[in-house]
Amino acid sequence: MDPIATPEALDATFRVHLGGKIAIANKAPLRTREDLARAYTPGFAHVAKAIFHNPDEVYRLTIKQNAVAVITDGSAVSGIGDVGPAAALPVMEGKAMLFKQLADIDAFPLCLATKDVGEIVETVKRLEPTFGGIMLEDISAPRCFEVEDRLRAELTIPVLHDDQHATAVAATAGLINALKLVGKRAQDLKVVMVGAGAAGTACAKLFMRIGVENIVACDREGALHRDRDGLGDAKRWFAENTNPGHETGSLADVMTGADVFLGVSGPGVIGIEDIRKMKEGAVIFALANPVPEILPGDVEGLVAIIATGRSDFPNQIDCSLCYPGIFRGALDCRAHEINDAMKIAAAHAIASVLDENLLSTRRIIPSVFDPRVVPSVRAAVVKAAMESGAARASAACQPPAAALKGRAARWQDEALDVVG
Amino acid sequence: MDPIATPEALDATFRVHLGGKIAIANKAPLRTREDLARAYTPGFAHVAKAIFHNPDEVYRLTIKQNAVAVITDGSAVSGIGDVGPAAALPVMEGKAMLFKQLADIDAFPLCLATKDVGEIVETVKRLEPTFGGIMLEDISAPRCFEVEDRLRAELTIPVLHDDQHATAVAATAGLINALKLVGKRAQDLKVVMVGAGAAGTACAKLFMRIGVENIVACDREGALHRDRDGLGDAKRWFAENTNPGHETGSLADVMTGADVFLGVSGPGVIGIEDIRKMKEGAVIFALANPVPEILPGDVEGLVAIIATGRSDFPNQIDCSLCYPGIFRGALDCRAHEINDAMKIAAAHAIASVLDENLLSTRRIIPSVFDPRVVPSVRAAVVKAAMESGAARASAACQPPAAALKGRAARWQDEALDVVG
Repeated sequence: MDPIATPEALDATFRVHLGGKIAIANKAPLRTREDLARAYTPGFAHVAKAIFHNPDEVYRLTIKQNAVAVITDGSAVSGIGDVGPAAALPVMEGKAMLFKQLADIDAFPLCLATKDVGEIVETVKRLEPTFGGIMLEDISAPRCFEVEDRLRAELTIPVLHDDQHATAVAATAGLINALKLVGKRAQDLKVVMVGAGAAGTACAKLFMRIGVENIVACDREGALHRDRDGLGDAKRWFAENTNPGHETGSLADVMTGADVFLGVSGPGVIGIEDIRKMKEGAVIFALANPVPEILPGDVEGLVAIIATGRSDFPNQIDCSLCYPGIFRGALDCRAHEINDAMKIAAAHAIASVLDENLLSTRRIIPSVFDPRVVPSVRAAVVKAAMESGAARASAACQPPAAALKGRAARWQDEALDVVG
Repeated sequence: MDPIATPEALDATFRVHLGGKIAIANKAPLRTREDLARAYTPGFAHVAKAIFHNPDEVYRLTIKQNAVAVITDGSAVSGIGDVGPAAALPVMEGKAMLFKQLADIDAFPLCLATKDVGEIVETVKRLEPTFGGIMLEDISAPRCFEVEDRLRAELTIPVLHDDQHATAVAATAGLINALKLVGKRAQDLKVVMVGAGAAGTACAKLFMRIGVENIVACDREGALHRDRDGLGDAKRWFAENTNPGHETGSLADVMTGADVFLGVSGPGVIGIEDIRKMKEGAVIFALANPVPEILPGDVEGLVAIIATGRSDFPNQIDCSLCYPGIFRGALDCRAHEINDAMKIAAAHAIASVLDENLLSTRRIIPSVFDPRVVPSVRAAVVKAAMESGAARASAACQPPAAALKGRAARWQDEALDVVG
């Protein structure tokens, strides 16, 4: 099932990585003295002075308007854990590639040689002048919460922790479409979940923002409820803000009558017998990567819908569906933050890419290659940013409509090329 | 004389800067599930593990081998001064463009929102995992000395302060060829200079490394000598290490009998009457930018050779002649530093690009577009790095000869295209 399982595929994988996967490209020629005079000296001095006298011009006259830093400390790399900043670099390069391919964003990976929350925060703050946005990636919980909270408070450019929020947006998009298929409403659901880490917490919060009222989160010792002692901050949040019915007992106990199971933990946390206790029209999100909490083949016929994080099963809950379009929108309207309204708008936009009459239990969410995803997410995020006051764009600082149309057309062409 | 002096040229300059001058380019396609599996997930996890188990692999399997960070705080931007990090961004983008165009190096500008020496140093240290080299740019003296010294001591990748050392290498290359034309030896020269800042100090040090023994540096109050009181660190260095004849008095006084005048200060510090006091075969380096200490037209017939920092006069002493080839060499042999031996080798390499029988008083240094410069500097820097113990390259980690040949051939083609 692992597409890299053969020696040939592994060879090809290493070959793709030789020398790195991204490069710098010059957008203007430097072939004559005139070219140098404009793009280099003395031209840049005229432009530097213009920015010095009107700081807002940095968005018009530099890479800032389209530049995102992909920041990690390499402490929680997807599927392999704390490998450190150097080993995380190929992962961050991959993120930058998707930013470019899907949303024409110029993202640069910066893998930091520190795991200290204060040091990460102050480093990113010092990098702010160059970038229009910051994507935090693969920073382990609970440090990632504080890093993101502090950067959101202290920076004037949008900050998004991919692992938390992009996963949550994609899962929420999947849930929105799954509910259409099983004919249930968010407020009537019982959602049982395992995994109180970064992604799990963000999923629970976003599910609640679309109307889910009854979430029961479990750890190894069972349900998290307000009378449990000795909980860390993340589990304490669950104990205090979820489980309104005050359910106690083991995961197996609380699975009785569940409509949705959300796994954001690891393989083997749940068994077939637990799944059998779910209600008619059960929905499973088994998002552990690369090995899901339970495999689609094991629950066939037992549940209505199963989604995973894997590209080789149907219904892939993929954070790549989210961050390119979210940042495209945030950059285009010069949002100062990426707030919950923008994330929920993104989830609805992803869900709505698939017409209701095209939805099926094996197709609740579009492919990352679907050319409609990024323009749809972008438009929804811009609208939500405008309405929520996060956008700083006036007509003057937004890209002209014609340019956007051109960009959208280019996406369409490229994306159709991809699909075709 | 300013090529941007017309409204049309200014318009064209701002147009070139719209949206920034560099972009990210993907080196591999991301068009199919197989592409994603190799370049993205789960492929990158295999590569990340390989680097985790053998940290040296980061040079083979990521962008690090070819990535240089161009770091500034915007405190001393060429010709315009302390404009801050945002206004410095178009300048740093220009440096990145030249890195790409001339040496196929992927440089990324990082403009830091701090002027504190300790904060700049610790920030760059945290950025080390991603980069193969660090170029410091437009950081004001005397902070730039401490920043560079500390980073050189604390990083395992090469660090170069462009304003100091690239200028010094270019000026030294010019001096080497100028001396051939006027038939003098370095050890017989009297060099008078004005400007004890970053570039001036580096020039003096490198001139001394090629054999110049008698340098007399001046400030507004006259010659710097060991009995002068109240000098800052940079001037103190000059007082203690130059002026062996213990000359005193004003600049006008010490100009008597000078062979070379080096200006690294500003316009108007020296007059025609001072120049008239120089020896036969006088050489002037008037490197203030954009307005030189004295203009070529003012000294015609009085001196043998005049060089400036300007592209619209003959003999441009241009730091762009140096840093692309120096970093190309340092990256290719994985040097852990850029030491004096490598800088002197670079100066000789630049000088030797022009055959002796092609030298003239109006052509002591090659053009930045000369296709021989970067390969020549690269080869000399690699050799000097090997001999001085700075290179960490074994046969295994150096680029294969064929690849280098291919790269050199590509340079030639592109560069010929530029010139033609």
